[in-house]
Amino acid sequence: MDLGWLRRRFGDRFVEDGAVAALYVRDASFMEFSRSAIGVVFPEEEEEVVELVRWAVENRTPLFPQGCATSLSGNAAATAPGLVVSFERMAKVEVDPVDGVAVVGPGVKLEELNLALARYGLFFPVDPGSVKSATVGGAIANGAGGMRGAKYGTMKDWVLGLRVVTGRGDVLRLGCRTYKCRNGYDLVRLFVGSEGTLGLITEATLKLAPVPESAAAVLAYYRDVETLVEDVVRVRASRVWPLFAEFLDAPTSALVGLEEKNALFIGVDVNAGAEEKVINKLRGLLRGEVALEAAGWEASMRLLEPRRRLFYGQIKAAGGGVLVIEDVAVPISKLPDAVRGLKAAAARHGVPLLLGGHVGDGNIHPATWYRREEGPARVENFIRDMAELVAKLGGTISAEHGIGVLKRELAKAELGEAALSYMRELKRLFDPYNVLNPGKVLPG
Amino acid sequence: MDLGWLRRRFGDRFVEDGAVAALYVRDASFMEFSRSAIGVVFPEEEEEVVELVRWAVENRTPLFPQGCATSLSGNAAATAPGLVVSFERMAKVEVDPVDGVAVVGPGVKLEELNLALARYGLFFPVDPGSVKSATVGGAIANGAGGMRGAKYGTMKDWVLGLRVVTGRGDVLRLGCRTYKCRNGYDLVRLFVGSEGTLGLITEATLKLAPVPESAAAVLAYYRDVETLVEDVVRVRASRVWPLFAEFLDAPTSALVGLEEKNALFIGVDVNAGAEEKVINKLRGLLRGEVALEAAGWEASMRLLEPRRRLFYGQIKAAGGGVLVIEDVAVPISKLPDAVRGLKAAAARHGVPLLLGGHVGDGNIHPATWYRREEGPARVENFIRDMAELVAKLGGTISAEHGIGVLKRELAKAELGEAALSYMRELKRLFDPYNVLNPGKVLPG
Repeated sequence: MDLGWLRRRFGDRFVEDGAVAALYVRDASFMEFSRSAIGVVFPEEEEEVVELVRWAVENRTPLFPQGCATSLSGNAAATAPGLVVSFERMAKVEVDPVDGVAVVGPGVKLEELNLALARYGLFFPVDPGSVKSATVGGAIANGAGGMRGAKYGTMKDWVLGLRVVTGRGDVLRLGCRTYKCRNGYDLVRLFVGSEGTLGLITEATLKLAPVPESAAAVLAYYRDVETLVEDVVRVRASRVWPLFAEFLDAPTSALVGLEEKNALFIGVDVNAGAEEKVINKLRGLLRGEVALEAAGWEASMRLLEPRRRLFYGQIKAAGGGVLVIEDVAVPISKLPDAVRGLKAAAARHGVPLLLGGHVGDGNIHPATWYRREEGPARVENFIRDMAELVAKLGGTISAEHGIGVLKRELAKAELGEAALSYMRELKRLFDPYNVLNPGKVLPG
Repeated sequence: MDLGWLRRRFGDRFVEDGAVAALYVRDASFMEFSRSAIGVVFPEEEEEVVELVRWAVENRTPLFPQGCATSLSGNAAATAPGLVVSFERMAKVEVDPVDGVAVVGPGVKLEELNLALARYGLFFPVDPGSVKSATVGGAIANGAGGMRGAKYGTMKDWVLGLRVVTGRGDVLRLGCRTYKCRNGYDLVRLFVGSEGTLGLITEATLKLAPVPESAAAVLAYYRDVETLVEDVVRVRASRVWPLFAEFLDAPTSALVGLEEKNALFIGVDVNAGAEEKVINKLRGLLRGEVALEAAGWEASMRLLEPRRRLFYGQIKAAGGGVLVIEDVAVPISKLPDAVRGLKAAAARHGVPLLLGGHVGDGNIHPATWYRREEGPARVENFIRDMAELVAKLGGTISAEHGIGVLKRELAKAELGEAALSYMRELKRLFDPYNVLNPGKVLPG
């Protein structure tokens, strides 16, 4: 392996120090996926990314692209001896408020983008739990979702165009700067959620949204999670389409500083003046105890703050155990069946279970854990039952966290052999030497 | 070619009558793309579609899939001696209003779908000019857009899942029934807009939207198109994000029954009670003469009705000439430059020019025509300049009509050789025998 070229080309932007590299080989998951890397490189220009790919092909050395590595399935972990490519320094932001478009580097944090947009009354609506540290490039690569998915969908709905470098070192300009775009096959969406396995993103053209004029939200407490999710179904059946509908189960609520009750956070965007009407409608529909109300966009977003601490609650609950955060979605009407089934499976296998997530779009994050000394067997059995349940309910085992290393076998069952074989051929087409984030997404 | 199997398998659902076939070989474009077909077949089940593909491969006979053939670029035309596959009879509709999802056959018309949804207060927001006859399968294959693209985007934003039969006869289940979905590579969006060249759609799972509580709209007349599109820019710069912003130039307005003035139709969705405020805001922003106002969803949609007659206006204007309807999009801020440039190009080449379209998302449909006896040379020169102009403004030569036969050379210049070569390999992967709608999308 020719490290000399890396040293000459990148100077102090190629870091070989093992202690630094050790910070970059992991993502936010708790399983041990990582190996030691030969170093971390920080490109600043697309041309450098092209040269890195060519170097990787010549040296048959894997590249592990990274934003801020907040993924939870090993997506961004360096799982083989290779080079971590950090996009931290490719962080330009160009906003056109009339066009409703931002052209950004992959290393821009979602939070930074939103700060740049605030002066125009615009925002980027995709709002994953990791929004304060997640980068645009990472969010695209992982097809991130989050808190406002009920109204705004996920990354796949907000990327208009991309520049990517494939595993053959080709630069592809994909998509358009306009909202409508029909120039050939739509390869943009093939790259969204491909976890850096088909190409490295060097620039993204994002669609923006106007900040809604206002919103109204309530926090309601429930005795049991079943009634809580039944109420989400009632809200939808009553033709209220929330901006967000989020929840925490009672133990998690306590861990993030709320009362130890199952908490439903539900908000709707409205025109100024319509807040009261929505709050009254929600009070009429919800059987839980409404503990807080918010009128206005900022107030509604603030009401959601405790929900944002779900991840910290899960970490606390797991103690020193190995935390496994799952990420299923079911059709909204099936949420009650999903909650009942998940609880039964956890009881059957004797594993701890915390529930929380984005019920407004049917997305639940069951969290469980095991002590290292006892091993993962019971958790694995629980996950097998979970996957079976979700399939039966017409859902998916991967809503927004992606496949990474963790979900490859589950994905295999869900996708079926036919779709998988085409996906394998796509990987060969875009990355024939398997240098881009190898070992992710596709099962072995 | 073994027609015996077709006759046995499909009985009277295989129509060989040349007069009937002649009705199916064309789409709505005016150029002469079509050849005579060996017949039309009407499958009712996915398994029949699989068998048709296998038959096509064995007999090296192209299949030309069709909804209602309302495409405008030859997308659905039978351009070689082959078999037209009409999806008219695969027209199931299953709605789940709580999940906000419909599972439909490809042959369902968008209008029929919306009729089925009305009772739930839901609708399918993609609204192409051909909405009364266009089918879901055709709209997906063509990545249709339309009147409400400013707010709701295009088909690519509303397809959650697909079942497709590839050119290798494989059935692929793609995507999910849930709004969030990250199970492997996103092949759904690769098929949206692929014009039947990668696979035949046998079922689609669509995302639905709640009918907005209310809307407000105005029709304003302008002396010149330049001021009209400048006002669209002003509206966006004033942080009003319209549901629709549509226009007709003065000659087209007259042809569809309005005053002979440039007409801007602009609407915003709101909560009930906020209509007046929006209308006043629009009155304050627009420099045109506000001739009509509408408050309420239905009233706002009715206000748009004359705009829906653009196509008929264009046909009338062209007289017996060969009508060429183009389909460009530019960033919204560039609309004034686009209008000025298009007019200059038409004057330069001495071709007639009508303007109309979806200015709310930057999408203009320049229409021109030529008499058969004079030939297309001047129109071709105009189109060459149009493409150059659009590229310079950061736009695209194909916003929503697709590539078909007509735009293949224009697409080539816009996409560049690198992206095109990957697209060719994708075509080989999904349709190695080139039996699915050959001669479309990709340039020769």
